[in-house]
Amino acid sequence: MTAPTPLKAQLQFLLELDRLKSVVRQSRLADGSRRENAAEHSWHLALFALLLSEHADVPVDAAHAAKLLLIHDIVEIDAGDAPIHASGASKAAIEAAEHKAANRIFGLLPADQATAYRTLWLEFEAGQSAEARFAKALDRLQPLLLNVMVGGGTWVDNNVSEQQVLERYGPAIAGGSTTLWEAARDLVEAHFKPTVP
Amino acid sequence: MTAPTPLKAQLQFLLELDRLKSVVRQSRLADGSRRENAAEHSWHLALFALLLSEHADVPVDAAHAAKLLLIHDIVEIDAGDAPIHASGASKAAIEAAEHKAANRIFGLLPADQATAYRTLWLEFEAGQSAEARFAKALDRLQPLLLNVMVGGGTWVDNNVSEQQVLERYGPAIAGGSTTLWEAARDLVEAHFKPTVP
Repeated sequence: MTAPTPLKAQLQFLLELDRLKSVVRQSRLADGSRRENAAEHSWHLALFALLLSEHADVPVDAAHAAKLLLIHDIVEIDAGDAPIHASGASKAAIEAAEHKAANRIFGLLPADQATAYRTLWLEFEAGQSAEARFAKALDRLQPLLLNVMVGGGTWVDNNVSEQQVLERYGPAIAGGSTTLWEAARDLVEAHFKPTVP
Repeated sequence: MTAPTPLKAQLQFLLELDRLKSVVRQSRLADGSRRENAAEHSWHLALFALLLSEHADVPVDAAHAAKLLLIHDIVEIDAGDAPIHASGASKAAIEAAEHKAANRIFGLLPADQATAYRTLWLEFEAGQSAEARFAKALDRLQPLLLNVMVGGGTWVDNNVSEQQVLERYGPAIAGGSTTLWEAARDLVEAHFKPTVP
Protein backbone atom coordinates (compact mmCIF):
# COMPACT_ATOMS: atom_id res chain seq x y z
CA MET A 1 0.00 0.00 0.00
CA THR A 2 1.39 3.39 -0.97
CA ALA A 3 1.09 6.37 1.36
CA PRO A 4 -1.90 8.60 0.62
CA THR A 5 -1.30 11.91 -1.12
CA PRO A 6 -1.28 14.91 1.24
CA LEU A 7 -4.77 15.89 0.07
CA LYS A 8 -6.15 12.40 0.66
CA ALA A 9 -4.63 12.36 4.14
CA GLN A 10 -6.11 15.80 4.87
CA LEU A 11 -9.58 14.76 3.71
CA GLN A 12 -9.35 11.55 5.74
CA PHE A 13 -8.49 13.63 8.82
CA LEU A 14 -11.32 16.08 8.15
CA LEU A 15 -13.81 13.23 7.82
CA GLU A 16 -12.47 11.69 11.05
CA LEU A 17 -13.18 15.05 12.73
CA ASP A 18 -16.85 14.61 11.89
CA ARG A 19 -17.05 12.20 14.82
CA LEU A 20 -16.54 15.08 17.28
CA LYS A 21 -20.13 16.10 16.46
CA SER A 22 -21.25 12.92 18.27
CA VAL A 23 -19.23 13.49 21.45
CA VAL A 24 -21.86 14.77 23.87
CA ARG A 25 -20.87 17.04 26.73
CA GLN A 26 -22.66 17.55 30.03
CA SER A 27 -23.63 21.18 29.34
CA ARG A 28 -27.06 21.91 27.95
CA LEU A 29 -27.74 24.42 25.19
CA ALA A 30 -28.84 27.83 26.44
CA ASP A 31 -32.48 26.94 25.70
CA GLY A 32 -32.18 23.68 27.66
CA SER A 33 -33.37 21.62 24.68
CA ARG A 34 -30.51 19.10 24.67
CA ARG A 35 -26.88 18.59 25.68
CA GLU A 36 -24.14 20.26 23.69
CA ASN A 37 -21.70 18.35 21.52
CA ALA A 38 -17.96 19.00 21.45
CA ALA A 39 -17.89 20.25 17.84
CA GLU A 40 -20.47 23.02 18.27
CA HIS A 41 -18.89 23.82 21.66
CA SER A 42 -15.56 24.35 19.85
CA TRP A 43 -17.23 26.62 17.29
CA HIS A 44 -18.82 28.65 20.06
CA LEU A 45 -15.50 29.00 21.87
CA ALA A 46 -13.65 30.17 18.76
CA LEU A 47 -16.09 33.07 18.57
CA PHE A 48 -15.63 33.77 22.28
CA ALA A 49 -11.90 34.10 21.53
CA LEU A 50 -12.36 36.39 18.55
CA LEU A 51 -14.82 38.66 20.34
CA LEU A 52 -13.50 38.81 23.90
CA SER A 53 -9.74 39.05 23.38
CA GLU A 54 -9.67 42.69 24.55
CA HIS A 55 -10.51 41.39 28.03
CA ALA A 56 -7.45 39.13 28.33
CA ASP A 57 -5.09 40.20 31.11
CA VAL A 58 -2.17 40.26 28.70
CA PRO A 59 -2.31 40.95 24.95
CA VAL A 60 -3.28 37.82 23.02
CA ASP A 61 -3.39 36.87 19.35
CA ALA A 62 -7.14 36.26 19.12
CA ALA A 63 -6.87 34.18 15.94
CA HIS A 64 -4.31 31.93 17.59
CA ALA A 65 -6.51 31.47 20.66
CA ALA A 66 -9.42 30.66 18.34
CA LYS A 67 -7.28 28.07 16.55
CA LEU A 68 -6.38 26.42 19.87
CA LEU A 69 -10.07 26.24 20.74
CA LEU A 70 -11.05 24.82 17.36
CA ILE A 71 -8.78 21.83 17.99
CA HIS A 72 -8.73 21.57 21.81
CA ASP A 73 -11.37 18.83 22.05
CA ILE A 74 -10.43 16.73 19.02
CA VAL A 75 -8.82 14.11 21.27
CA GLU A 76 -12.29 13.46 22.73
CA ILE A 77 -13.12 11.55 19.55
CA ASP A 78 -11.14 8.69 21.12
CA ALA A 79 -10.87 9.68 24.78
CA GLY A 80 -14.41 10.99 25.36
CA ASP A 81 -15.42 14.05 27.33
CA ALA A 82 -14.05 14.31 30.88
CA PRO A 83 -16.72 16.25 32.81
CA ILE A 84 -15.50 18.89 35.26
CA HIS A 85 -17.78 17.70 38.09
CA ALA A 86 -17.23 13.95 37.67
CA SER A 87 -14.96 11.94 39.91
CA GLY A 88 -14.41 8.80 37.88
CA ALA A 89 -11.21 8.11 35.96
CA SER A 90 -7.97 9.48 37.38
CA LYS A 91 -6.46 12.62 35.89
CA ALA A 92 -3.41 10.59 34.82
CA ALA A 93 -5.55 8.01 33.02
CA ILE A 94 -7.48 10.73 31.19
CA GLU A 95 -4.26 12.45 30.15
CA ALA A 96 -2.76 9.21 28.90
CA ALA A 97 -5.86 8.48 26.82
CA GLU A 98 -5.84 12.00 25.40
CA HIS A 99 -2.18 11.87 24.42
CA LYS A 100 -2.73 8.53 22.71
CA ALA A 101 -5.70 10.03 20.89
CA ALA A 102 -3.66 13.06 19.80
CA ASN A 103 -1.02 10.78 18.34
CA ARG A 104 -3.55 8.72 16.40
CA ILE A 105 -5.83 11.48 15.18
CA PHE A 106 -3.32 14.22 14.32
CA GLY A 107 -1.15 11.41 12.94
CA LEU A 108 -3.67 11.01 10.11
CA LEU A 109 -2.41 14.31 8.68
CA PRO A 110 0.65 14.76 6.42
CA ALA A 111 3.75 14.77 8.64
CA ASP A 112 4.30 18.55 8.78
CA GLN A 113 0.68 19.29 9.68
CA ALA A 114 0.57 16.35 12.10
CA THR A 115 3.47 17.87 14.00
CA ALA A 116 2.09 21.40 13.84
CA TYR A 117 -1.37 20.45 15.09
CA ARG A 118 -0.17 18.09 17.80
CA THR A 119 2.05 20.94 18.97
CA LEU A 120 -0.93 23.31 19.04
CA TRP A 121 -2.88 20.81 21.13
CA LEU A 122 0.07 20.43 23.53
CA GLU A 123 0.24 24.22 23.78
CA PHE A 124 -3.40 24.31 24.83
CA GLU A 125 -2.95 21.46 27.29
CA ALA A 126 0.12 23.00 28.89
CA GLY A 127 -1.74 26.29 29.38
CA GLN A 128 1.48 28.28 29.51
CA SER A 129 1.24 30.67 26.55
CA ALA A 130 -0.93 33.76 26.85
CA GLU A 131 -3.27 32.38 24.20
CA ALA A 132 -3.56 28.99 25.90
CA ARG A 133 -4.35 30.61 29.24
CA PHE A 134 -6.99 32.79 27.60
CA ALA A 135 -8.41 29.79 25.70
CA LYS A 136 -8.65 27.78 28.93
CA ALA A 137 -10.44 30.69 30.59
CA LEU A 138 -13.04 30.71 27.82
CA ASP A 139 -13.40 26.92 27.99
CA ARG A 140 -14.60 27.40 31.58
CA LEU A 141 -16.58 30.61 30.98
CA GLN A 142 -18.80 29.22 28.24
CA PRO A 143 -20.28 26.27 30.20
CA LEU A 144 -20.67 28.56 33.22
CA LEU A 145 -22.83 30.90 31.11
CA LEU A 146 -24.85 27.97 29.76
CA ASN A 147 -25.45 26.69 33.29
CA VAL A 148 -26.69 30.11 34.38
CA MET A 149 -28.99 30.26 31.35
CA VAL A 150 -30.65 26.92 32.15
CA GLY A 151 -31.05 27.58 35.86
CA GLY A 152 -28.12 25.51 37.08
CA GLY A 153 -27.57 22.72 34.57
CA THR A 154 -24.61 20.55 35.53
CA TRP A 155 -24.44 22.27 38.94
CA VAL A 156 -27.90 20.97 39.77
CA ASP A 157 -27.16 17.58 38.16
CA ASN A 158 -24.10 17.14 40.35
CA ASN A 159 -25.33 18.93 43.48
CA VAL A 160 -22.48 21.44 43.22
CA SER A 161 -22.37 24.31 45.72
CA GLU A 162 -21.57 27.96 45.02
CA GLN A 163 -18.23 27.47 46.75
CA GLN A 164 -17.41 24.48 44.52
CA VAL A 165 -18.35 26.48 41.42
CA LEU A 166 -16.04 29.30 42.47
CA GLU A 167 -13.23 26.83 43.10
CA ARG A 168 -13.67 24.80 39.92
CA TYR A 169 -14.15 27.68 37.45
CA GLY A 170 -12.32 30.54 39.15
CA PRO A 171 -8.65 29.63 38.72
CA ALA A 172 -8.95 28.91 34.99
CA ILE A 173 -11.08 31.97 34.16
CA ALA A 174 -9.15 34.36 36.40
CA GLY A 175 -5.93 32.86 34.99
CA GLY A 176 -6.79 34.35 31.62
CA SER A 177 -8.92 37.38 32.37
CA THR A 178 -9.65 39.23 35.61
CA THR A 179 -12.45 41.10 33.86
CA LEU A 180 -14.20 37.97 32.67
CA TRP A 181 -13.87 36.32 36.07
CA GLU A 182 -15.41 39.35 37.79
CA ALA A 183 -18.37 39.20 35.43
CA ALA A 184 -18.66 35.42 35.80
CA ARG A 185 -18.44 35.58 39.61
CA ASP A 186 -21.26 38.13 39.67
CA LEU A 187 -23.41 35.76 37.61
CA VAL A 188 -22.59 32.83 39.90
CA GLU A 189 -23.37 34.84 43.02
CA ALA A 190 -26.67 36.03 41.55
CA HIS A 191 -27.52 32.49 40.55
CA PHE A 192 -26.96 31.05 44.01
CA LYS A 193 -28.51 33.97 45.91
CA PRO A 194 -31.57 32.75 47.85
CA THR A 195 -34.74 34.24 46.40
CA VAL A 196 -36.82 36.21 48.86
CA PRO A 197 -40.24 34.56 49.14
CA MET B 1 -32.52 52.05 30.19
CA THR B 2 -28.79 52.60 29.87
CA ALA B 3 -26.79 50.98 27.10
CA PRO B 4 -25.10 47.72 28.13
CA THR B 5 -21.36 47.75 28.75
CA PRO B 6 -19.29 46.37 25.86
CA LEU B 7 -18.74 43.12 27.77
CA LYS B 8 -22.46 42.68 28.48
CA ALA B 9 -23.24 43.30 24.80
CA GLN B 10 -20.58 40.78 23.77
CA LEU B 11 -21.90 38.13 26.14
CA GLN B 12 -25.46 38.77 24.95
CA PHE B 13 -24.29 38.26 21.35
CA LEU B 14 -22.39 35.09 22.26
CA LEU B 15 -25.46 33.66 23.99
CA GLU B 16 -27.59 34.59 20.97
CA LEU B 17 -25.14 32.57 18.83
CA ASP B 18 -26.05 29.49 20.85
CA ARG B 19 -29.22 29.31 18.75
CA LEU B 20 -27.20 28.37 15.64
CA LYS B 21 -26.74 24.94 17.26
CA SER B 22 -30.47 24.39 16.69
CA VAL B 23 -30.49 25.35 12.99
CA VAL B 24 -30.59 21.99 11.26
CA ARG B 25 -29.14 21.58 7.78
CA GLN B 26 -30.05 19.01 5.15
CA SER B 27 -26.65 17.24 5.25
CA ARG B 28 -26.27 14.17 7.42
CA LEU B 29 -23.23 13.48 9.57
CA ALA B 30 -20.68 11.17 7.95
CA ASP B 31 -22.03 8.23 9.96
CA GLY B 32 -25.59 8.95 8.82
CA SER B 33 -26.85 9.14 12.39
CA ARG B 34 -28.60 12.51 12.14
CA ARG B 35 -28.63 15.81 10.23
CA GLU B 36 -25.90 18.34 10.83
CA ASN B 37 -26.51 21.67 12.55
CA ALA B 38 -25.11 24.97 11.32
CA ALA B 39 -22.84 25.52 14.34
CA GLU B 40 -20.93 22.24 14.07
CA HIS B 41 -20.88 22.69 10.28
CA SER B 42 -19.16 26.05 10.80
CA TRP B 43 -16.61 24.46 13.15
CA HIS B 44 -15.89 21.77 10.59
CA LEU B 45 -15.43 24.32 7.83
CA ALA B 46 -13.02 26.44 9.87
CA LEU B 47 -10.78 23.38 10.10
CA PHE B 48 -11.16 22.74 6.38
CA ALA B 49 -9.86 26.29 5.84
CA LEU B 50 -6.91 25.91 8.22
CA LEU B 51 -5.85 22.55 6.78
CA LEU B 52 -6.51 22.90 3.06
CA SER B 53 -5.35 26.44 2.33
CA GLU B 54 -2.31 25.21 0.39
CA HIS B 55 -4.74 23.98 -2.28
CA ALA B 56 -6.31 27.38 -2.94
CA ASP B 57 -5.66 28.61 -6.47
CA VAL B 58 -4.25 31.89 -5.16
CA PRO B 59 -2.50 32.45 -1.83
CA VAL B 60 -5.03 32.89 0.99
CA ASP B 61 -4.82 33.93 4.63
CA ALA B 62 -6.10 30.66 6.12
CA ALA B 63 -7.02 32.25 9.46
CA HIS B 64 -9.09 34.90 7.68
CA ALA B 65 -10.89 32.26 5.62
CA ALA B 66 -11.56 30.33 8.84
CA LYS B 67 -12.98 33.47 10.45
CA LEU B 68 -15.33 34.01 7.50
CA LEU B 69 -16.52 30.42 7.86
CA LEU B 70 -17.02 30.71 11.62
CA ILE B 71 -19.53 33.52 11.04
CA HIS B 72 -20.92 32.74 7.57
CA ASP B 73 -24.08 31.01 8.79
CA ILE B 74 -24.92 33.18 11.80
CA VAL B 75 -27.70 34.88 9.84
CA GLU B 76 -29.48 31.52 9.70
CA ILE B 77 -30.46 32.02 13.35
CA ASP B 78 -33.17 34.31 11.96
CA ALA B 79 -33.33 33.41 8.27
CA GLY B 80 -33.01 29.63 8.50
CA ASP B 81 -30.96 27.35 6.26
CA ALA B 82 -31.51 27.72 2.50
CA PRO B 83 -30.84 24.22 1.10
CA ILE B 84 -28.89 24.04 -2.16
CA HIS B 85 -31.34 21.60 -3.79
CA ALA B 86 -34.58 23.27 -2.66
CA SER B 87 -36.69 25.41 -4.94
CA GLY B 88 -38.87 27.29 -2.49
CA ALA B 89 -38.23 30.90 -1.57
CA SER B 90 -36.74 33.19 -4.18
CA LYS B 91 -33.06 34.05 -4.00
CA ALA B 92 -33.99 37.71 -3.48
CA ALA B 93 -36.29 36.89 -0.56
CA ILE B 94 -33.59 34.77 1.10
CA GLU B 95 -31.01 37.51 0.66
CA ALA B 96 -33.33 40.12 2.11
CA ALA B 97 -34.02 37.94 5.16
CA GLU B 98 -30.31 37.29 5.64
CA HIS B 99 -29.37 40.97 5.44
CA LYS B 100 -32.07 41.81 7.97
CA ALA B 101 -30.72 39.05 10.21
CA ALA B 102 -27.16 40.33 9.88
CA ASN B 103 -28.28 43.79 10.96
CA ARG B 104 -30.15 42.48 13.99
CA ILE B 105 -27.67 39.86 15.18
CA PHE B 106 -24.34 41.60 14.56
CA GLY B 107 -26.09 44.74 15.83
CA LEU B 108 -26.11 43.18 19.31
CA LEU B 109 -22.35 43.75 19.48
CA PRO B 110 -20.61 46.99 20.53
CA ALA B 111 -20.62 49.35 17.54
CA ASP B 112 -17.05 48.75 16.36
CA GLN B 113 -17.39 44.95 16.44
CA ALA B 114 -20.88 45.13 14.93
CA THR B 115 -19.44 46.95 11.94
CA ALA B 116 -16.40 44.69 11.68
CA TYR B 117 -18.39 41.46 11.79
CA ARG B 118 -21.16 42.62 9.48
CA THR B 119 -18.40 43.60 7.06
CA LEU B 120 -16.84 40.14 7.33
CA TRP B 121 -20.20 38.56 6.59
CA LEU B 122 -20.68 40.84 3.58
CA GLU B 123 -17.19 39.87 2.38
CA PHE B 124 -18.19 36.20 2.51
CA GLU B 125 -21.49 36.85 0.79
CA ALA B 126 -19.90 38.90 -2.01
CA GLY B 127 -17.38 36.12 -2.65
CA GLN B 128 -14.89 38.50 -4.23
CA SER B 129 -11.83 38.31 -1.98
CA ALA B 130 -9.48 35.34 -2.32
CA GLU B 131 -10.46 34.18 1.17
CA ALA B 132 -14.19 34.47 0.48
CA ARG B 133 -13.86 32.49 -2.76
CA PHE B 134 -11.89 29.80 -0.94
CA ALA B 135 -14.40 29.79 1.94
CA LYS B 136 -17.28 29.37 -0.49
CA ALA B 137 -15.46 26.49 -2.16
CA LEU B 138 -15.14 24.72 1.20
CA ASP B 139 -18.79 25.44 2.03
CA ARG B 140 -19.68 23.33 -1.03
CA LEU B 141 -16.93 20.72 -0.63
CA GLN B 142 -17.85 19.70 2.91
CA PRO B 143 -21.49 18.70 2.24
CA LEU B 144 -20.37 16.97 -0.97
CA LEU B 145 -18.00 14.81 1.09
CA LEU B 146 -20.73 14.07 3.64
CA ASN B 147 -23.13 13.04 0.87
CA VAL B 148 -20.54 10.66 -0.58
CA MET B 149 -19.94 9.20 2.89
CA VAL B 150 -23.64 8.41 3.44
CA GLY B 151 -24.25 6.97 -0.01
CA GLY B 152 -25.93 10.01 -1.57
CA GLY B 153 -27.63 11.90 1.25
CA THR B 154 -29.34 15.05 -0.04
CA TRP B 155 -28.75 13.92 -3.63
CA VAL B 156 -30.92 10.87 -3.03
CA ASP B 157 -33.43 12.90 -0.96
CA ASN B 158 -33.87 15.37 -3.82
CA ASN B 159 -33.42 12.98 -6.76
CA VAL B 160 -30.43 14.96 -7.98
CA SER B 161 -28.49 13.66 -11.00
CA GLU B 162 -24.73 13.53 -11.46
CA GLN B 163 -24.99 16.38 -13.96
CA GLN B 164 -26.91 18.51 -11.44
CA VAL B 165 -24.31 17.80 -8.75
CA LEU B 166 -21.51 18.89 -11.07
CA GLU B 167 -23.44 22.07 -11.96
CA ARG B 168 -24.43 22.97 -8.39
CA TYR B 169 -21.13 22.29 -6.65
CA GLY B 170 -18.59 22.76 -9.44
CA PRO B 171 -18.55 26.53 -9.96
CA ALA B 172 -18.14 27.34 -6.25
CA ILE B 173 -15.50 24.70 -5.55
CA ALA B 174 -13.54 25.29 -8.77
CA GLY B 175 -13.84 29.03 -8.10
CA GLY B 176 -11.61 28.60 -5.07
CA SER B 177 -9.47 25.57 -5.83
CA THR B 178 -8.88 23.62 -9.02
CA THR B 179 -7.18 20.88 -7.00
CA LEU B 180 -10.11 20.43 -4.63
CA TRP B 181 -12.60 20.42 -7.49
CA GLU B 182 -10.64 17.72 -9.32
CA ALA B 183 -10.68 15.56 -6.18
CA ALA B 184 -14.36 16.29 -5.56
CA ARG B 185 -15.32 15.56 -9.17
CA ASP B 186 -13.56 12.19 -8.97
CA LEU B 187 -15.58 11.34 -5.86
CA VAL B 188 -18.84 12.41 -7.53
CA GLU B 189 -18.08 10.37 -10.65
CA ALA B 190 -17.21 7.31 -8.57
CA HIS B 191 -20.39 7.77 -6.54
CA PHE B 192 -22.66 7.88 -9.59
CA LYS B 193 -20.84 5.14 -11.55
CA PRO B 194 -23.19 2.20 -12.12
CA THR B 195 -22.03 -0.80 -10.15
CA VAL B 196 -21.39 -3.89 -12.22
CA PRO B 197 -23.72 -6.63 -11.01
